[in-house]
Order: sequence, then structure tokens, then C-alpha cells
Amino acid sequence: MTTSVQRTNAVLASVSINPYSIVSHATADSPANWRSALQAVSSPEDFQLLKTLVFKPKTPKSAVTVPVVVLVAEQTEMSSSTLAKKLNHKEMRLAPDEVLKEFFTLDKDSLTPLALTKSSFPQVQTVFDLSIKSCTSLFAVRAFSSDTTVFLSGPQIASYLNSLESEEVRVQEIDFAQLKTETGVPASVSKAPATKEKESVKVEGAVQIGILYKKEIDFAGWYTDVLLKSEMMDYYNVSGCYILKPWSYSVWEAVQEWFNVQIKRLGVENAYFPMFVSSKVLEREKNHIEGFAPEVAWVTKAGNSDLEEPIAIRPTSETVMYPCALIQTAELPMFLTFPMSLDYAKWIKSHRDLPLKLNQWNSVVRWEFKNPRNFEEPFLRTREFLWQEGHTAHLTKESADEEVLQILDLYRRVYEELLAVPVIPGVKSEKEKFAGGLYTTTVEGFIPTTGRGIQGATSHCLGQNFSKMFGILVEDPNASAQSKEEKEKLFTDVVDPSAGKLFVWQNSWGLSTRVIGVMVMVHGDNKGLVLPPRVASIQVVVVPCGINSKTDHKAIFKGCEDLVLTLQNANIRAKADLRDGYTPGYKFNDWEQKGVPIRLEIGPADLAKSQAMSVRRDTGAKAPIALSNIAASVKQLLDVIQRDMFNRAKEVFDSHIIPVVKWEDVVPNLDDKNIVVMPWCEVEACEDDIKERSGRSAEPQDERAPSAGAKSLAIPFAQDRWPKIEQGTLCPACGNQAKRWTMFGRSY
Amino acid sequence: MTTSVQRTNAVLASVSINPYSIVSHATADSPANWRSALQAVSSPEDFQLLKTLVFKPKTPKSAVTVPVVVLVAEQTEMSSSTLAKKLNHKEMRLAPDEVLKEFFTLDKDSLTPLALTKSSFPQVQTVFDLSIKSCTSLFAVRAFSSDTTVFLSGPQIASYLNSLESEEVRVQEIDFAQLKTETGVPASVSKAPATKEKESVKVEGAVQIGILYKKEIDFAGWYTDVLLKSEMMDYYNVSGCYILKPWSYSVWEAVQEWFNVQIKRLGVENAYFPMFVSSKVLEREKNHIEGFAPEVAWVTKAGNSDLEEPIAIRPTSETVMYPCALIQTAELPMFLTFPMSLDYAKWIKSHRDLPLKLNQWNSVVRWEFKNPRNFEEPFLRTREFLWQEGHTAHLTKESADEEVLQILDLYRRVYEELLAVPVIPGVKSEKEKFAGGLYTTTVEGFIPTTGRGIQGATSHCLGQNFSKMFGILVEDPNASAQSKEEKEKLFTDVVDPSAGKLFVWQNSWGLSTRVIGVMVMVHGDNKGLVLPPRVASIQVVVVPCGINSKTDHKAIFKGCEDLVLTLQNANIRAKADLRDGYTPGYKFNDWEQKGVPIRLEIGPADLAKSQAMSVRRDTGAKAPIALSNIAASVKQLLDVIQRDMFNRAKEVFDSHIIPVVKWEDVVPNLDDKNIVVMPWCEVEACEDDIKERSGRSAEPQDERAPSAGAKSLAIPFAQDRWPKIEQGTLCPACGNQAKRWTMFGRSY
Repeated sequence: MTTSVQRTNAVLASVSINPYSIVSHATADSPANWRSALQAVSSPEDFQLLKTLVFKPKTPKSAVTVPVVVLVAEQTEMSSSTLAKKLNHKEMRLAPDEVLKEFFTLDKDSLTPLALTKSSFPQVQTVFDLSIKSCTSLFAVRAFSSDTTVFLSGPQIASYLNSLESEEVRVQEIDFAQLKTETGVPASVSKAPATKEKESVKVEGAVQIGILYKKEIDFAGWYTDVLLKSEMMDYYNVSGCYILKPWSYSVWEAVQEWFNVQIKRLGVENAYFPMFVSSKVLEREKNHIEGFAPEVAWVTKAGNSDLEEPIAIRPTSETVMYPCALIQTAELPMFLTFPMSLDYAKWIKSHRDLPLKLNQWNSVVRWEFKNPRNFEEPFLRTREFLWQEGHTAHLTKESADEEVLQILDLYRRVYEELLAVPVIPGVKSEKEKFAGGLYTTTVEGFIPTTGRGIQGATSHCLGQNFSKMFGILVEDPNASAQSKEEKEKLFTDVVDPSAGKLFVWQNSWGLSTRVIGVMVMVHGDNKGLVLPPRVASIQVVVVPCGINSKTDHKAIFKGCEDLVLTLQNANIRAKADLRDGYTPGYKFNDWEQKGVPIRLEIGPADLAKSQAMSVRRDTGAKAPIALSNIAASVKQLLDVIQRDMFNRAKEVFDSHIIPVVKWEDVVPNLDDKNIVVMPWCEVEACEDDIKERSGRSAEPQDERAPSAGAKSLAIPFAQDRWPKIEQGTLCPACGNQAKRWTMFGRSY
Repeated sequence: MTTSVQRTNAVLASVSINPYSIVSHATADSPANWRSALQAVSSPEDFQLLKTLVFKPKTPKSAVTVPVVVLVAEQTEMSSSTLAKKLNHKEMRLAPDEVLKEFFTLDKDSLTPLALTKSSFPQVQTVFDLSIKSCTSLFAVRAFSSDTTVFLSGPQIASYLNSLESEEVRVQEIDFAQLKTETGVPASVSKAPATKEKESVKVEGAVQIGILYKKEIDFAGWYTDVLLKSEMMDYYNVSGCYILKPWSYSVWEAVQEWFNVQIKRLGVENAYFPMFVSSKVLEREKNHIEGFAPEVAWVTKAGNSDLEEPIAIRPTSETVMYPCALIQTAELPMFLTFPMSLDYAKWIKSHRDLPLKLNQWNSVVRWEFKNPRNFEEPFLRTREFLWQEGHTAHLTKESADEEVLQILDLYRRVYEELLAVPVIPGVKSEKEKFAGGLYTTTVEGFIPTTGRGIQGATSHCLGQNFSKMFGILVEDPNASAQSKEEKEKLFTDVVDPSAGKLFVWQNSWGLSTRVIGVMVMVHGDNKGLVLPPRVASIQVVVVPCGINSKTDHKAIFKGCEDLVLTLQNANIRAKADLRDGYTPGYKFNDWEQKGVPIRLEIGPADLAKSQAMSVRRDTGAKAPIALSNIAASVKQLLDVIQRDMFNRAKEVFDSHIIPVVKWEDVVPNLDDKNIVVMPWCEVEACEDDIKERSGRSAEPQDERAPSAGAKSLAIPFAQDRWPKIEQGTLCPACGNQAKRWTMFGRSY
């Protein structure tokens, strides 16, 4: 006897879909029962119910009944009359049970899209809500029984349906949200096409295992699909958390390795501070914590016991690290000193140990609640993410200022030199700076496909705010020297220990795994990921070709292996794909999806000519390379690819930064997917106003972007790129005197 | 007007003590009030109140009153008559307020040991509870006022008192716990000395900034003091969590760097899985979770909202990683596959992608509650710790078995080759193996000073338990090949998808920052830390000597800098200590405490002779080294030190493994700080019995060790070290047939 679990497994396995899970539960005959039955068993934290409805269109009695199968999320509102009109049916009614039995041998509570088979699919009309396709959260789908449910992501459901399609019969994708608007507000319908044409969304000529979406048409679907297919990330059953698979983690390791060398040259030392913060300490810095409080995750229990006081998981470590210097009114931060040292000289000389420069690589947690289903983006916005956070203390503002820019330039180099992603260094407006800090510098990136800016990494000068809060001071080295006797007097008498002392200047700076998401968005194409050579864990893949019963299969394999060794000996990260049973075409596609910068093909003809055929991932350009000096040639080609990728991206970015001096030009340029740069007054109220006015524009709200209004991205350091701002140059937004050219844009 | 906060700061600064914090609170006139006043303000999670009592001994009216100041924890029980007897006073009474005013100008609720000064100390008799000294948790100490409290650790209080001592007048340290026993159970008194002699505990000839405790006498105090003074760790205000300062984190980085290279050679890839686990997933594997449940920290809130379901912080990641393969009855773990791949060939061939080998570097949380005050040891036992965890899947048991040992050997090499710590590889008994696994291998270390075994790192074969639990299977490569048609039939028909499939074999293996603690305990001495050269972030420190008004100070500094460059160019991690205002003696002591393997001294005479004087940290041996070829000489010396440190430790370990064949020899050998190895029956009940019987021995319970009974540490792989076990060789504990030589010992 086959169970419904086994049946579900078999169906999904046949199209290589891995469900999140399949669960058995109490029999459920209504959406409410279904949901509570699922919640009583092992289910994901967050899911939607998938409704599978079957309608019977009104047809002449003589005609063959073609039932309409409608797949929408449970909460989707729809009227059968609107839908009927849309589908050019006169009228539609929910099909009686006998129709279900006839077509699917299932009743309404066990009906599932998985019951659609190659043979039944052409006999029905299948309608699918377009929004499900790009919805990466999970759907509960009936699994051939009212007591069994399979959890599938939107793209997985879409993928299953796609597998049933033929040239003649296709799934009809309808935007139900749009449909509702069409009914409610007919005036606005004409703007967007009612349905996206399936053919235009799907990448032409792609084999089935290829990327399912066109980057320029369904960017969100494309992004998710690329991340999954390139094996960069995978879903996880805690909402907002993702798995960083080796293919993305290795990019992070490349960034770490480079950055560690650079910061150690600047005298930074790595350390590790606990992930927990007591609530009292966390709440000490009011401005700072106001920025983070709504997102802090709290541990309140251990085992079965409640903790006396909840403990926070760090959202960032300023308040973790600085209290260690708490009330050190006469000392350095505790972590620099011998806590029990009795040596006066050391105490007096402590300012010589500045600057103190610590860094840690860790993960932080920011539990954002804003509708995670729509706002989460793997790498860009996740509840736990990996980063480095540097925290340094300086004797003078000059020393702090200098380091802020040294680090920012390292961040620029991570983006530009490692990831081939152009960024613009600048300073944040007062509104956008780090809560509790003095000023924030940033490297701002740009996602051309959406025309949105993205903050790349930030380097903050905290000023003396935290050192005053946490009492971190040192002896003023310029204070007059005291005699030994005077010093001893100081210690036996009761004196103000902060006299003649200075509060230190502090910086903090961080770069996160967001860099990976930005890199994917900027360079990826409709074939998948495109990796810049410097961060690719495999830079060159060698694929044997032209093997048939007549060729010397062993010689070609040997040729591939030798080539890989040659390349590896020249410190090129190379790998031969000698997997049996896969065609070269399959392998090409596989490594293209994964973004490997160079493919080298070796076939009998190549061996005979002592050459390999090289194919660039970024351009597709093919060229033979002589084996005799191949390591040097490949090295050079990797450099060219790295440079070309950067230059192309830079050209695109530059062409999308539009200088404007009139307000009328702001919104149209934003709507054309640009960033604008304008002479700005730098007044916070004006920034609020710009956001408000640009948000009111005609652009439809994009659920994926947190803000459709434009905010200031950065005041670029390189002001001379644009005409000098004179006395009388006015801010186009408010008409007051402008100060500096400032970039505004919609952003992530 | 000086506040009590300022006064406290000044007093502590005078002896360079950094308090944890100083807080103001509501006036408190009783211990209960005091505690609740503290709890209402920003205080550490966990602290004890320090009682400062002043007694007036009964003396003839004519004699000078010498008040007795007694410093004990609030909950310490004491009778004034017993104490009086102990102090050879006829009778003692609590001193009236006027005595307090006379001596300290303070009342009973503001009285503080900090009021003792160089001038008042000789006028009183100061009695201090010995147990406070080595208690690393915090004490609330009155800060010259009933509304102000300073938090100090036990060693800090001890340090303050020590700073007041002179040759004539010393603090009287009394073991109050012992005193109570003496009174209650007079019979047992004679066994241990009533008080430890202060002089014998303190390291002779140590300058004040040196290590305060002798390793062989007060091991716990010594360990903490070495970690603090060498700047390896610092306290943190969440109980059970510590800060890894750069000096220890760099050791961890050295381990990471080496281990990453080794595992990557074995085909292991690094990844990152989320720190959170949903409760349902965590609880899926019952045996496994039973081992961890009492220690799991739960997140129940984010911002101000309660989570729908509590989410755990990983105590380990088996249940984080394996559910990603949940109900993958026909597929590889999700993280290895293209989730939407529609390629049949790939599905059928998936076993070729085995073994799957993933590793992650992260922190895990195990919230142990067992009286943290006594059981925590920085690095050995902390609530959050850093580690790596490897998780691999194999097609066959043979492949899994092989890897278990490959990894175990890497762990052995981390200990022996990097940390110079000898370990014994072996397998754990059934009782001691990893919960839910098949078998556990281990490298077992030994702390000679306490005579206790310590588990170094473990490599587990999980068998198929987790793969069955989480349904991780692959196509059986040996199953008969099917035709394309047969395969298609398989997918269209409803069949049991696990037919012809194999559950994978899994391993997991982990090494934590515990390695640092073991290294400190094994190699450290009464001068401080001793670092093995291979993990020392500074291997050679160059100290200029013999500088006075007549010498050419610049030439010597230049000589030092040149020498450092020469060494650095030979990849030796060298640093010159050119700090001004510190004597060479101070610097020697400083770097000795920090354990730098080689000190090179350069003075005018050395420069004249073109030599440097080398001093080995491990032996203190001094020898001149010619500057002409110094890099090679130093390199060689570093190798010698590394080897010598290992050999010495190995000799000690070997001499403490005592083979026993009679039960009567077990406990005496354990009591002599040995590990015993005996022919053992390997029956679990026998192990319980051994623990029970050895725990009942005469040895006083040591609060610092979780178990005073002996448990099995490992069944060493190298059985031929001892006589062959024949038929008829009996287990000394139970008299049954013995199987293998097994190490038993008290342990951490």
C-alpha cells in the first residue's frame, strides 16, 4: 500500500524537486483546521496555505468539460466572475466533487497541483498566481490526502507546473493582485500589462535546468534562482536565516583573507567578544540603542529555567566592547591593561598604547519584522549575518579621522579590486549616519537592473560620545610631568581622577556578507552567476570534450589532469570536471551557472594541436590557448576578465548618476532607474521632504524595496566630478543655498 | 566635594585595579536591602555581597585596641567565638560605631576594605577568607558610602589587600569553610593544615606585578591570574562568558590556519549554517537532544514582541544541518543539489557526489547551570565557546571510519605539533560517547598539576542514526542498472522511493578553544604563560639593555630594529620593545608573563661583540648568538624549544599513566595525581561502579572538578604499550573477562 507521503516523494523526485518537508497531521477539512493541524506538528515557522480550486466553466451541454484549476495563496481574494471574464468564460462555478473524482480521484481537501500529470494537464486549464512564482517563502501544499502536507517554495511549485507544459498547453499565469486592482480601479489598468507574457519572462533557449527568469524582467525571481542554482545559498527553516553554502562562503573567505592582511598592517588585532549583551549595558547608550532596539533578539530561557534577566544577542558590539572599559576613569580600556598591575609608570604612560585597534569576525542578529516575506533578500537583508566589526580608540581626532578613511579605502578596494564592483566613497547625511556616532563614511554601490543604490560598507567616527558614556580616558600626554612624590600624593589623597585626562576618540567599521549579494546582482546574467576571478574558488574549469567510442578517452582525461596540475602549480585555482555520464553541454551549463570565470575545453583535436579552447564566462568569447605556455596565458586572461568586469560595471554605474539642478528632473530620472546627484543644502528637513515628494511619484510601489522614496545615499568625496558649487547655487529641493553635490536615490 | 565614586576610583587607580563597575543606588542598611538596591540598578548578573565586619577583641583596658577586620562573603557562616579561638583571642565582639568612626571615619554600612590604607592597615588585624582569593566571580564591595558599590573580583580584592602588606604586617588568610568543619567535625581537622601558609602560596621573589600564585599550590588562582596577566582573556558581565583578547585569539588563528589547510586537502569545504534552530527540529533526535536540552539557550522575544515559537541557539549543529536533507528520500542532502534540477541522470548518479564534507567555524552556546561560580573555567568550560564543527556524509561505513581517524590524527597534531601538548588517541566507552552517535574517538590530554584527564577533541562516527532520522539516502550504486524506460516508469508510477537506496554514513568532529586552556595549564609556570613557538603571535622579543646616560641609546635602538627586520624577513614573528620609561627588568617580566618563547637582549657590550643574548622562556637558559647568522640560529632555537616543550610534557604524561591490575591500586594512584590504565571489561555498569567506588575515596572533593570519581577517559588505540590481554585476564573492578586496556581518571 503506497502512502501519500511516498506518492508525493515519487512525484517530486521525478522532477528532482526537494521539498522542504512532508508532514502527516490531523485530517483537516478547512483552511483554519489545516493551519492549526500543521501548527500542531513539525512545520516551518512561517508559511502560507496553497488553495487548489477547480471551477467548471459554463459550457454547452454537448461540449467537453475543461475544468479550470486555480492555484493561489489562501488569503488571495478573488471573485469567480472577474476571473471568468479574464479567462473569457461566460461564467464559472466551483466544480462538484464528481468532477474532482473524475479528473484526479481526489476530493477537495486532498486536491493538489501535484495530481496534475503529463496526461491530465492537457485536459484542464491551469491558472497560477504570478506572485507565487517569485515568493521564496514556503507554501503548505496538500499531498494527495487531507492529512498530509508538503512544504514547497513558490519557485518549486512553478517549477513543477513548468515540467508539465508542452508547446501546446501552458500554465496561465495571472497577477491576481493586479486583477483585483483592475476590477476595483479600472482607470489604472492600462499602465502595466495585465499578465506578463510567460515567454518573455523565461530565458530563451535555456535548458530546463537553466536559470528560469530573465534578470531584466523578473529581477527578484532571477536573483533567488541564481543563488539557488549556483549553490551559493539555501533556505533554512527559521525565517530570515539562510545557509551560506561553500560556493558563497569561499567568496567570504577570500574577502577575509585579503582584509585581514590589510588591517593587520594597520596594527589591528583580531579578538572575540561574547555574543551576549546584558540588557542594562545594551540600553546604556540611548540614541544608539533606539536604532537597534526593535530588532534585538532576547534570550530569556536556558534549559527549562527562566533567566533572571533577559540577555540580548548582539546587534552590533559597541555596547559589548566598550563597557569593558566602564568607569575606567583613570585607565585604558580593561582589555588593554594588566588588571592587577601595580606599576605606576604603566598607568601614567597608558596613552602610549593608543591607538588601540581591535577587530572581530562574527555574526550579528537583527530581527527585522517588516513583513519578512517580501523584504528579506538573501545576503542583503537577513536576520543573522556574518561581518567583521572593527573598534578602535585613538588619542586624537586626527588619528581617528585618518583611520576612518584608511578603512573606507580598504572597503572600496574589497568592492572594486576583489569583487569588481564600482562604489562611490562619501559621507552620509546627518539623518543617515550611525546612531550615536559623530559621522559615517560609506562606499555606495548601485544595482543597475533596479536602478537602486545600495550601501556597501560603512566606517564610522564615533567621536567621544561612547568614551564619555563608558568613561574611557587616558592620561593627557601634554599635561605637565609630575614628580614621583606628586604622583604618590595623587594616589593617597582623594582627588578627581579625571583631571588632566582625555576621553579617547573611537571609530567602528563593518563589512558584511552583503558584499556577496551585491556582487551577484551586479555581475550575474541570464545564464547565472558571474564570478570575478579574484574571489572565485574555482577560477578555471577544464572540461573534456569530443569523447566518443573512437577517441582515446584516457589520453584526454590525462590531458585535462595534467593541465589542472600545471595551472595549480602556478597558483591558479583550477579543477577538471571528469564526471562520468554527463555531457559536455551539461557541464558547460553547470559551471556557467556557478560563474566560473574561464572554461577550458580539451578534445582530441585540441590535444593534437597542443591547445585548449578557452571560453570566458563574462563575455562568452572563445579563443584557443597554446598548452606550451598556458599558465601565463590563463593568468593574464584572468586579470583581463577581472579588469573588464570592473570597467563594464563602472561604465554602467557612471552613466546612471545623473546630475540634476531642477526638482522637475529628479523623479523622472529616478523612474528611469538612475541615481541623481544634486547640489544639496544638507538640511535634514529637506531630506525628509525629498523622500516624501519622490515617494509620491507615479512609480508603482515595489514590495521588494524598503523605500520607494529617494533618500540621500552619500555626499561623495570626489566633488570635483561636478561643477563647483558657488554662492547662489541653490538646492533644487528647497531653494536654499546648496553645500555639496549629494547622491539621492531609491535604495535597498 | 569629592564623591564616593571619585574616592573609590582614586584608591583603586593607585594600585592599578580596574573595577568591573562602580554604581550608585538607593541607600542600603542591610544585606537584603543592599542586594535589592543593586538589582534595581545596572549590576552584573551574578555577584556575592562582601561583608566587612569589625570586631573588638577583649583586651585589658590599658592595652591598645587592635580591631579585627574580617572580610568574608555575605553567606559565609561564622561564629565569633570559633574565630576568636582561631585568632588566639579570648573573646571578640562586634565593634561599636565609635570604633569604626575612629579608625575609618565610616559607619557599618559604608565600611569597605578600601578604607584600609598604608597607615591604617598596621593598626588593625585583617582577616580574609581564603576562598575569596581564587573566586573569579564578582563581589559587591561597599564604596565608602551606603549608596555606592564597587564590583571587584576575588583576586582584585586580594590584590588590594596585598598592596598594603609590609614585612611586619600581613593579611591573615583563613579558610572559613575549613574553620566551620574544624568546629563541627573535630576528628577530620588534623588531615589538612588549618591554614595554608601565605608565604608558601605566593611565588617567592616575584615582583608585585608578577603571578601571585604558585601553580603547584593554588592551581585555580594561578590559572586565572596567568590568563589575566598574560592578557589572554578578560571577564565579561554575562556570567560564564569571557573575552578572548588578541593574545589568545591569535593562538586560535594559528590553529585555524593550519587546520583549514589540512581539512581542505581532505576535500572538506567551509560553509556557514544559521545559529538558530527551531525547537521542533532540535527535538527531533531524542537521544541526542537529551544530552543537550538542559543547556540550550532559547530566544523567545525580538524587540518587544514574543516569538510565536521559541528558537534555540545551536548547542551543536547536527540538527541544524541535517534537516536540510529532511525527507530527501530520493535525493542527496539539499545543500548538495540543484533544488530545481530536472535532470534525471544527476539524480541517479548522486552517490558519486559523496563523500560530502562540510565544516564551519562558529560559536556555540551551552548554558550550563551547575554552580557556575565554581565550575566555570575560562577556555575549558564556558557558556559560549568558539570551535569548528565538521559534518560529513559517506556512502560506506569504511569511508566514514577512515575519515574519523584522519580527523582524529589532525587533532592529535594540533595538540602535539602546534601546542606541544601530548595526547593519547583512543575510543570512548559506550557511556562516554556522543549522544546519538555510533562511536566516538578522542584525543585525551592530562593536566599534571591536578592529575586530571581532559578530553582534547572528539571525532564521532554517527553511523546511520541521523541519516535514518532525517531520511538522507542515495541511489545504491551497486543496484542493477535500469533502462531509461524503467526509470521513467519509476517516476510515473507510485512506488516506494527508498527502494534500491542506501542511507548515508555520517561523521561529525569538533575542536574548540579549549585547546588554549589546556596549553596554558600544561606549559605555564610560576612566571606566567609559556607559549610554544608555533602558535606564539610574537616568537621573539628584542629588548634593548644597558642604556644609561653614557651609552649610545640610538645605536642600540637601531640595532634592535635592524635585528627585528632581519628576523621578520626570515618569517620569524619578532618585535622590538622600545617602550620608553620601562626598565629592562620590567620588560623581561612583561614578556615572560606573556610567554614569548625567546627574548633577545641587546646592550652596548653585545653590539660591540656583534651578538645578542638569547634567553629561553621555557628553561631560562641564556646563550649569546652571533648577529651574523642570527635568523638561522633563532629559527633552529625555536624548533628546539618547540620539541623540548613537547618532550618534557610527554615525559610527565607518560610517567603519570599507571598500569594497574588490582582494584586496590586504583584509588591510591588516582590520589597521587595519576591516570590509571587497566584491562577493562567494557561493561557500562562496571564503569558506573568504578566512578562510584573511586569517588568514595579519601580525597577531599575538589569544587573545581566536576567529578571526583574516576571515569573512563579513553580506550587507547596503542594497546601494545601494555601486556597483551589474554583469555583469563580479568577486569580489576568487576572480575569479568577484560577486553582492552582502558584509561580511567578524574577529569575536567
